[in-house]
Amino acid sequence: MNLILLFKEDFIYEQRVQLKGRRHKHVLEILRPSVGQRLCVGVINGRVGFGTVTALTDKFLEMDVVLESQPPAALPVTLVLALPRPIVLKRVLQTLSSMGVKRIILLHCRRVEKSFWKSPSLSDEAIEEALVLGLEQARDTSLPKVLLRKQFKPFVEDELPGFINGTLALVAHPETKTPCPRDVKKSVTLVIGPEGGFIPYEIEKLRALGFTPVHLGQRILRVETAVTVLLSRLF
Amino acid sequence: MNLILLFKEDFIYEQRVQLKGRRHKHVLEILRPSVGQRLCVGVINGRVGFGTVTALTDKFLEMDVVLESQPPAALPVTLVLALPRPIVLKRVLQTLSSMGVKRIILLHCRRVEKSFWKSPSLSDEAIEEALVLGLEQARDTSLPKVLLRKQFKPFVEDELPGFINGTLALVAHPETKTPCPRDVKKSVTLVIGPEGGFIPYEIEKLRALGFTPVHLGQRILRVETAVTVLLSRLF
Repeated sequence: MNLILLFKEDFIYEQRVQLKGRRHKHVLEILRPSVGQRLCVGVINGRVGFGTVTALTDKFLEMDVVLESQPPAALPVTLVLALPRPIVLKRVLQTLSSMGVKRIILLHCRRVEKSFWKSPSLSDEAIEEALVLGLEQARDTSLPKVLLRKQFKPFVEDELPGFINGTLALVAHPETKTPCPRDVKKSVTLVIGPEGGFIPYEIEKLRALGFTPVHLGQRILRVETAVTVLLSRLF
Repeated sequence: MNLILLFKEDFIYEQRVQLKGRRHKHVLEILRPSVGQRLCVGVINGRVGFGTVTALTDKFLEMDVVLESQPPAALPVTLVLALPRPIVLKRVLQTLSSMGVKRIILLHCRRVEKSFWKSPSLSDEAIEEALVLGLEQARDTSLPKVLLRKQFKPFVEDELPGFINGTLALVAHPETKTPCPRDVKKSVTLVIGPEGGFIPYEIEKLRALGFTPVHLGQRILRVETAVTVLLSRLF
């Protein structure tokens, strides 16, 4: 936790916050500041700054906060990701959030197991928790939006054209000769398939919309690593 | 497991292997091939190819293997990493192995907790296990070498000059104005500090040897993500 993310309900007066629960525990057990010390804070979807500790007890933490600067810039990308298995999802969301992705669409396709959609890790609370951990890691405050789309065809036909308008549209696909471009300096819509890849029908649907299939080299990487590699090359 | 990694002791005749334990279990429970089906295999530090299943029982898997091609190219990098906390180490090693890093030095420095060096995840077996998982993920066979260096100063003064000779020497450091270069097309020695960064003395020692401090942007990333971002930019 490199930044303590604050929410509206944390403010007890204009500048003063009182924290209990996870953030209080982290400060109490890991950061262990004395009264008067400053901690890095930020307000959800707002500015970042510092909080001066006014009280730290077994029960709560209180700080007076000053919010003086903007959070780091977002990545200009819409990321469409075939829903990964639940055990992977949380870490992927945290990684994407820490890297500055602000629009994430989790998509069904043929090689996504239907049971994945029933996982508790897709609840609003679980998704927000993973995103918040990523923001706290990266000292960001701007909460990514996550959309769940359980039907491939209607999403690709009806919604995706709106997203790709004016962007570079790329789909990660091992069976192509075009390497992922570097440092593109424009907005990107990036589609990443499931373990085992998209089926030919799905790739054709994306290609028909104007997506260019790009690869990352010969190695097969875990979703989490592949996503990080793609974003690092593009931006 | 996108490739089943084979060791000398798996071969029962010239072309035939018999597997028990983890790999057998994975094939039996996840891949579920029938007799005659081919699975991707590779021999540790050797070639890759396929194994045709000749027997699959509750007790063992047997395959006849044909080794026809080279593993993917390695990354031309020596990675010097401040020892991360044990819970992170395993995943970092697996990621590095999957990305093709072949020489990894785990280094002590001021902000590495001494207790980390006593972790069971630093045993030869635990390190090899993590590296093998990375190779199996990426369909590679060439086992990375991992060196443990528990003293910063003797390593930097006596050994590091030998490693950096003829390479681009970079140290990841947030407090610098130089961004990490992209697509460098030469060998790199890359040093990555601990959570909280190197202390000024350590940075100065590295700078004196010819290391250029480079940054990754404003965001603070987890070690695992930062390593992936750095490698993806450089190569």
